[in-house]
Amino acid sequence: MTPIAKIFSLLALLLVVASVHAQERTLAERLGYPRDAKLIIVHADDLGMAHSVNIATVKAFESGLVTSGSIMMPCPWVPEIAAYAHANPQADLGLHLTLTSEWTQLRWGPVSSKDRVASLLDPNGYFRLTESEAAKYADPKEVELEIRAQIERAKALGIVPTHLDSHMGTLYQNKALFEVFLRVAREYKLPVRVAKAWFTRTDFLPEIIKPDDVFIDRVLDINPGVEPQDWARFYSDALRKLEPGVTEIVIHVAYDDAEMRGATSDHPAWGAAWRQRDFDFFTSDAFRQVLKENNIKLITWREIGKLIAK
Amino acid sequence: MTPIAKIFSLLALLLVVASVHAQERTLAERLGYPRDAKLIIVHADDLGMAHSVNIATVKAFESGLVTSGSIMMPCPWVPEIAAYAHANPQADLGLHLTLTSEWTQLRWGPVSSKDRVASLLDPNGYFRLTESEAAKYADPKEVELEIRAQIERAKALGIVPTHLDSHMGTLYQNKALFEVFLRVAREYKLPVRVAKAWFTRTDFLPEIIKPDDVFIDRVLDINPGVEPQDWARFYSDALRKLEPGVTEIVIHVAYDDAEMRGATSDHPAWGAAWRQRDFDFFTSDAFRQVLKENNIKLITWREIGKLIAK
Repeated sequence: MTPIAKIFSLLALLLVVASVHAQERTLAERLGYPRDAKLIIVHADDLGMAHSVNIATVKAFESGLVTSGSIMMPCPWVPEIAAYAHANPQADLGLHLTLTSEWTQLRWGPVSSKDRVASLLDPNGYFRLTESEAAKYADPKEVELEIRAQIERAKALGIVPTHLDSHMGTLYQNKALFEVFLRVAREYKLPVRVAKAWFTRTDFLPEIIKPDDVFIDRVLDINPGVEPQDWARFYSDALRKLEPGVTEIVIHVAYDDAEMRGATSDHPAWGAAWRQRDFDFFTSDAFRQVLKENNIKLITWREIGKLIAK
Repeated sequence: MTPIAKIFSLLALLLVVASVHAQERTLAERLGYPRDAKLIIVHADDLGMAHSVNIATVKAFESGLVTSGSIMMPCPWVPEIAAYAHANPQADLGLHLTLTSEWTQLRWGPVSSKDRVASLLDPNGYFRLTESEAAKYADPKEVELEIRAQIERAKALGIVPTHLDSHMGTLYQNKALFEVFLRVAREYKLPVRVAKAWFTRTDFLPEIIKPDDVFIDRVLDINPGVEPQDWARFYSDALRKLEPGVTEIVIHVAYDDAEMRGATSDHPAWGAAWRQRDFDFFTSDAFRQVLKENNIKLITWREIGKLIAK
């Protein structure tokens, strides 16, 4: 980006910020909460990937402490979670739009016909292993075709998605992919996982967003640098320091069982034990207590989606 | 089939039988065993379907009592078993050519591009649930394209198949599909699961087979009528009564764990507990003892494949 283009981008950002201020209402206020309310969506990614993910996430939903999740439509266990969605129409389920297949023992490919999305595939017909490789080779037209196919497949299976996000953040990797993501989301009138906190981190974000787009304030997730014994402390500390506004806590829930260990054997990060730790903390009394002590309220993407004019 | 066509078919069968007798050597003899030898291939189906199937089957191979298995290329856990095949080139692994997706929670679709095999798919892009539905709608040209794609995908993943068979017997459902199956198998010079004992059961078999085709004598499998407590007795009795020649015992091996119970929850037949029982019997000392007492020898498809001129 040239310096002049950068200045224009910043001006665009200022206009958006100004328009938000002109409305004089924060997202929290638009949702009916006080301006200083601390609101969180506790969001479990990767539904459909494995039976272990599905059953642990459903159990976490039943605890009342995990409020939301999103489904990977290309994955083998989608019919199981589609049946859950059908039986539980109040569940806050979105789509975790998927363009990567990151494990080495367990893999998947596109929902659409392979010859129509060749730029998304490795030589064996699976999605690529990493988000950077996927973004490097992806033809945005084929990305659009595939993510529309994932949304339409979900609807055909009886899933009514409340929101969209992007597995491994592939759709945030460059401007062309992000434009496709937002265009499709606007057309389906669905909120997306984009945080205002990200606006200063990427050049292209301010250029693409529109005043009518609804964005949450921030996304919080744990990272591989946290030691297993510090898991609960990491989340508890983050919750105690939570700023007002809407925060999505993105977690990965499964059981540390044979299936998940098999799937993630070469990935300690986001692996089976990692997901069990997320399950353990976010279904615990300790988590419930931190919420209470810090006056943090649980919300869902469904509430946010209601702010988008249908 | 008209009565005259039936007579011609029977004549064709007699010619084949006569040609076998003219060679005066049974399959057992051609494999280097005495004419009265009792030879079995203990064959585990459905590799690649689930992690539980893969790890239980590999464990069964390690017992030395299960000699062979076949892989479902459209399934999610193929890369795990492909890595095993690569590391164990002596393993007797074939392809379980797959045109159905029979569970309701866990499903898969074709290896080839969906646009090119539309006759094989249900409205959600998965293979159909049953072999009879699959056969009813399948265009044989699309079947040929798909099974060739499965074989080529296997080779690309480093699997060198020793034999071919057909998941749920879809390719045996009618003459057109069986012709495709045999044509492709002959081209790849691979033996197929076809038993001489079947020749009198279907009208079309005698018309299609050629004198050079290599067929085993019979296939033995358990059926849903056997009570769980009678499992070992069923197999032990069948082995004690085994006739000379080459018998393939087709089994389904997995652990009765969360993943398999999830996959097969609505199917007691061929379900998780069924597969655990197969695992338990065919890795047991009781099975080893029956083999010894009845002078039954274990063989593989690899040995049979060597009889096909390359």
